[in-house]
Amino acid sequence: MKKLKVNLGDRSYPIIISNNALSSEKEIQKHISDKQVAVITTKKIASLHLTKIKKYLNLNKENILIYIPDGERAKSIKYFSKLLDSLIKNEFKRDGLLIALGGGVVGDLVGFTAACYQRGIKFIQCPTTLLSQVDSSVGGKTGINHESSKNMIGAFHQPSAVFCDLSTLETLSKRQLKAGLAEILKYGLIEEKSLWSYCQKNKESILSLNKNNLENIIYESCKIKAKIVSQDERESGVRAHLNFGHTFGHAIEAIEQYKNLLHGEAVGIGMHMASLISMRIGALDKNAYEEIYEGLCKFGFLPKYNKYSTNELLQKIRLDKKNKASRFRFILLSDIGKAFIHEVPSVSKLKKLISLAF
Amino acid sequence: MKKLKVNLGDRSYPIIISNNALSSEKEIQKHISDKQVAVITTKKIASLHLTKIKKYLNLNKENILIYIPDGERAKSIKYFSKLLDSLIKNEFKRDGLLIALGGGVVGDLVGFTAACYQRGIKFIQCPTTLLSQVDSSVGGKTGINHESSKNMIGAFHQPSAVFCDLSTLETLSKRQLKAGLAEILKYGLIEEKSLWSYCQKNKESILSLNKNNLENIIYESCKIKAKIVSQDERESGVRAHLNFGHTFGHAIEAIEQYKNLLHGEAVGIGMHMASLISMRIGALDKNAYEEIYEGLCKFGFLPKYNKYSTNELLQKIRLDKKNKASRFRFILLSDIGKAFIHEVPSVSKLKKLISLAF
Repeated sequence: MKKLKVNLGDRSYPIIISNNALSSEKEIQKHISDKQVAVITTKKIASLHLTKIKKYLNLNKENILIYIPDGERAKSIKYFSKLLDSLIKNEFKRDGLLIALGGGVVGDLVGFTAACYQRGIKFIQCPTTLLSQVDSSVGGKTGINHESSKNMIGAFHQPSAVFCDLSTLETLSKRQLKAGLAEILKYGLIEEKSLWSYCQKNKESILSLNKNNLENIIYESCKIKAKIVSQDERESGVRAHLNFGHTFGHAIEAIEQYKNLLHGEAVGIGMHMASLISMRIGALDKNAYEEIYEGLCKFGFLPKYNKYSTNELLQKIRLDKKNKASRFRFILLSDIGKAFIHEVPSVSKLKKLISLAF
Repeated sequence: MKKLKVNLGDRSYPIIISNNALSSEKEIQKHISDKQVAVITTKKIASLHLTKIKKYLNLNKENILIYIPDGERAKSIKYFSKLLDSLIKNEFKRDGLLIALGGGVVGDLVGFTAACYQRGIKFIQCPTTLLSQVDSSVGGKTGINHESSKNMIGAFHQPSAVFCDLSTLETLSKRQLKAGLAEILKYGLIEEKSLWSYCQKNKESILSLNKNNLENIIYESCKIKAKIVSQDERESGVRAHLNFGHTFGHAIEAIEQYKNLLHGEAVGIGMHMASLISMRIGALDKNAYEEIYEGLCKFGFLPKYNKYSTNELLQKIRLDKKNKASRFRFILLSDIGKAFIHEVPSVSKLKKLISLAF
C-alpha cells in the first residue's frame, strides 16, 4: 500500500493506492464511520466491484445505493437533478458522505452533486479506471456537460479521500488501460523524466497488469498531480501544465464526435502535436522530440496522427475556446519533464501554430 | 457614502452603501471595466432600476441582459438551467462578470449560477430590497430551491462587490420595508444593542425613508454580518447566530404555504418565540424580554403571533430538519445583543421547548 497527501490546508486529503484499497476495511472505515452514506455507481460497475465495499457498508434505509446510467450522458443537468431528487427523497443529511464508485463520469457527477447538495457535503472517490485513478479523481475538478460544450457547469470541490484499488483495473480492456497510460506518460513529459523512462522500460509488464509496476506509476502520477494541485488549486498558473496535449486532444475528440477515440487516445495524439510544435518553434531539442515520438508510437498512440487538417483543428479549438477564455493558451515542452505555457494572441497566429503540427 | 470590507483573504470584497451606489460610475466601473458583463434581473426590476446602471454599461453583442421571472419560482433547477443556456448561447467567457440586479431571489440564483458556470466566475450583487441589502447579498450563501425544501441546492460563492443603493428602496411598499427591518432588528438582538435601540428611537424617520437613518442601519447591519462571515464563512460555528428567529420563521412560512407572510414578517414572529423561550428557560431577563416584545410590537410584527400551535410547529421544524442535520439547534438570547446556540437532543425535548413559546 502507498499513501499520499494532497496539501490544501483544512481541505487536505489522502490518496490510498493498493491492490485492495476498497476492501481494506480499516482505511475506508475512518471516513465512513458513523456517517449516513450514499453509494453512487452504475449497474455495470456495481456488478463488478460493489461487493468490495458492500461487506462493511450497511445498505439499509439510512445508507443508500443510487444507480446512474453508463456513459457520458450521465454528466448532464438531467442526472444531476435526478441524483439530488434521490438524496432528498431519502432524507440525506448535510453531515452524510457520498461515495463515487466508478470512472471519471461517475466521479465528476458525484463530486459536483456533493458540491451543491445543501451548499456542499463530503464525498470520497473510488475510481475504477486507470484514467480516473491518475487524473479526474484527484484535484477537485467536478462537473457536468452542457449539450454544446463539455464540463461547462461545475465546481472545485475536493474529496475527503481517494481510494485507488488496483484490482479494479483487471476488468478493463487493454484499450482502456492504454488510454489511461496516456495521462501517466503526460505526467512524465511535463514534470518527471524518470516516470516517462520507467513506463518505456516496463511497458510489457505494465500492460500485463504487474501490480508492483502499476502501484509505482499510479503513485508517481498522483504525486505529481497532488503537488501541482497543492500549488495552484484553481488553475491560475502551473495547474494549466496538466492540460498538455489536451487542447489538441479535445479538438480531435470533437472531430471524431466523441465516438471513435477514447479520451486518452486523443490526448496521446495531442501530446505528439504539442511536442512537434515545441521542436519546430525551437523550444525542444530534436533528440528529445524523437524520443517522445518513438515512445508514443511504442504505446500505439500514433497510428494515423496526421489524418486531421489544420483548418479542422483550428475550427474546433476556436469553438472550444470561444465559450471559455479570451486568449489561446498552449502547453509546450522545453525538454522531457519540463513544460511551459505558450500564449497565442490572435487567430492568425493560432492557425500558424497549429499548422506546425503537420 | 459608506464603505465596508468583508475580510476573507483573497476573496475579500467591499460593500458600498449610498443613496446612489448604482449610479456612481466610478465605484462600479472598478469592477466592470474591460470585462464581458451579463446583467440578470426581472422585467419589473429593470423597468424601475436598470437605467441607473445602463448609462455606463454598453449592452451590445458582448454585454448582455437576461430576464428571469418574478418571484420565488425563479430559484429552481429550471431557471438555473435556462440561465446557463443563455450564457453559453451568448458565448459568455470565464473571465466575465455577472451582475445580479434585484432582491434575494435574483441574488441567490445569479450567485449560484456564477458559482457553477465554468467552475466559478465573478459576480456582483446589486440588491434592490432592504432585506437583500442587509442579508442575502452579503456572505456568499447562494442557491436554489428543491420542490420539497428551500435552499437545498447551492454553494458558498462570495461576490466581488455589493452595491446597496438606497434610492432603490423608494419603490418598496411599506410592508416590504418593514419586513426588511426584521433582519436589521435581528442584528441588534444577537450582536449590537445600540442598533436595536437606534431603530426603536428612529422608527418613524426610518419608515419615512430618511436616507441618513437608512444608511446608518444598513451600514451597522452589514458590518455585523461582515464580521460574523469573516469569522465563520461556512457556518461551522458563530454564523449560526444569524439564524435567530429563523427556525420558527421558516416553520411559520411553511404553515402559511409561503403565501400569507413575507419572510421578514415570519422572522419577526420567530424572534419573539425564541426570546420568550430564552426567558422561560431562565437565560434572558424578564425586563429584556419585555423590551423585545414591545419593540417588535411597535414595528407591527406580532399581530397574531399565537395563532400557531406547538404540534403544527413541531411538524414543520422536523420536516425542515429531517433533510438537513441530525441534531436540532436553536439560537436563543442571554441579553439584547447576546446570542447563543442551544442544542436539543431529542424530539420529545424539542416538543417541550417549542411549547414554551405559547
